[in-house]
Amino acid sequence: MNEIALRVRYSETDAMGVVHHANYIRWFEVGRTEYLRSVGINYAQMERDGVYAPILRVEVEYKRPAAYDDEVIIQTRVLSFAQLRLRFGYRVLNMRRELLCEGLTVQAFVGRDLNPINPYKAIPDAVALMLKCAEKDKADG
Amino acid sequence: MNEIALRVRYSETDAMGVVHHANYIRWFEVGRTEYLRSVGINYAQMERDGVYAPILRVEVEYKRPAAYDDEVIIQTRVLSFAQLRLRFGYRVLNMRRELLCEGLTVQAFVGRDLNPINPYKAIPDAVALMLKCAEKDKADG
Amino acid sequence: MNEIALRVRYSETDAMGVVHHANYIRWFEVGRTEYLRSVGINYAQMERDGVYAPILRVEVEYKRPAAYDDEVIIQTRVLSFAQLRLRFGYRVLNMRRELLCEGLTVQAFVGRDLNPINPYKAIPDAVALMLKCAEKDKADG
Amino acid sequence: MNEIALRVRYSETDAMGVVHHANYIRWFEVGRTEYLRSVGINYAQMERDGVYAPILRVEVEYKRPAAYDDEVIIQTRVLSFAQLRLRFGYRVLNMRRELLCEGLTVQAFVGRDLNPINPYKAIPDAVALMLKCAEKDKADG
Repeated sequence: MNEIALRVRYSETDAMGVVHHANYIRWFEVGRTEYLRSVGINYAQMERDGVYAPILRVEVEYKRPAAYDDEVIIQTRVLSFAQLRLRFGYRVLNMRRELLCEGLTVQAFVGRDLNPINPYKAIPDAVALMLKCAEKDKADG
Repeated sequence: MNEIALRVRYSETDAMGVVHHANYIRWFEVGRTEYLRSVGINYAQMERDGVYAPILRVEVEYKRPAAYDDEVIIQTRVLSFAQLRLRFGYRVLNMRRELLCEGLTVQAFVGRDLNPINPYKAIPDAVALMLKCAEKDKADG
Repeated sequence: MNEIALRVRYSETDAMGVVHHANYIRWFEVGRTEYLRSVGINYAQMERDGVYAPILRVEVEYKRPAAYDDEVIIQTRVLSFAQLRLRFGYRVLNMRRELLCEGLTVQAFVGRDLNPINPYKAIPDAVALMLKCAEKDKADG
Repeated sequence: MNEIALRVRYSETDAMGVVHHANYIRWFEVGRTEYLRSVGINYAQMERDGVYAPILRVEVEYKRPAAYDDEVIIQTRVLSFAQLRLRFGYRVLNMRRELLCEGLTVQAFVGRDLNPINPYKAIPDAVALMLKCAEKDKADG
């Protein structure tokens, strides 16, 4: 499980005075990038090598709002890597460790032309790491 | 069911060359606003009157990408209004009527302080309209 | 001069209750796309053909705020096309034709590798149109 | 002068493969928040106390692009505080300290109703700090 902190930007708020709900999905992406980096996978490099992991599905459950300048914590873990799909789970907490939002994403692997590729062939080392992460994160609950 | 068309903005694309997945959720919001307007509910006025409908849950399933300057169609309908929760369903199509993405949102009703309010008391006319929409949209499949 | 109308999206507002200032720059981009289309230049196609027009400079002067669901008008015109630089001017009005904001952008022309190209050679027809627009928009004041 | 580092988010890129130009203005806002915090001014608290500092003018000059996952540095300083206007200057650098972009903003001070207020009366302590910053940043060049 990877944990990073970030501060709510003014541009992330909306007229309700709190963070606009779509922005949590951008934060999930930040959490994902940092999770991958923490286990030795550079997603930016993977794209430069022609492997992309577009989002197939997003689910988000909103519990509490966050406001401008609040510090929030993004927790990211791998839920599973199976049938060519990578599933991440996310929890966003405030500094009192209260849950603001939780969610998940499902990703596939495609080439530059956005056609599906087999990650076991294209990025075997990254796949091995993701399978290990999926196992470890499941064991950690 | 309400249908509106919009054009993909350059700022809505990402480095994959297609619309960033978080932006579909912003389009759902546009679809919702237009749906409500089409049945006689002015959400902007509702907020000025102190009633807000924050998002509790979002689900999105992505099927096909959209690119800059593509015209897309947002279809919005009420899935249900029950137990103080309003559920909208969305489909985004391209001009060949192919499905790009579908999703749903769940909304609650709160006051200016973001505490729950009873919409049956606060906005009875809008509730009556939403119940009628839920029934009609269900009948229309 | 091209004029298009659009409606303020909820996701474009911020905690001040009005449109976040960075979003006007995204609207300028919408105005630019529509201006070019109106004179027969398809910018999306130009990019598919390998010619990009990145922004070198932006200036914006904010006069009045806009709120969620307001209809606004984007007026776009070519200020000049000279020394390989394309300059657009913008005015954003509300429905009472009051000025909300005005600004300008300066663009260069580059290839897929983001290195400068000579638009007179790469896109001579588009250049001829832009020169004509610059002249016409100047004459129109 | 305040300096903070941040990493380019995927959602901040566009189809040109680099950071969309409007996002630098959001980063300026992050730089501003951190600058103010570093000199003892909490802008979030200022807004809770009913004092807002909307943007009247933005200028940005773009020099080099930034890509997803790049680390960038935002340098922020006060250019001046005069005639009820606060002017900040910004420079965005990459990790080789090359200039990506520079810009400035002009802000006024308003109350909750967005009508002008006199900051010398409303927030005298913050004004004293800003005047000191303006002097110091000018001396530092």
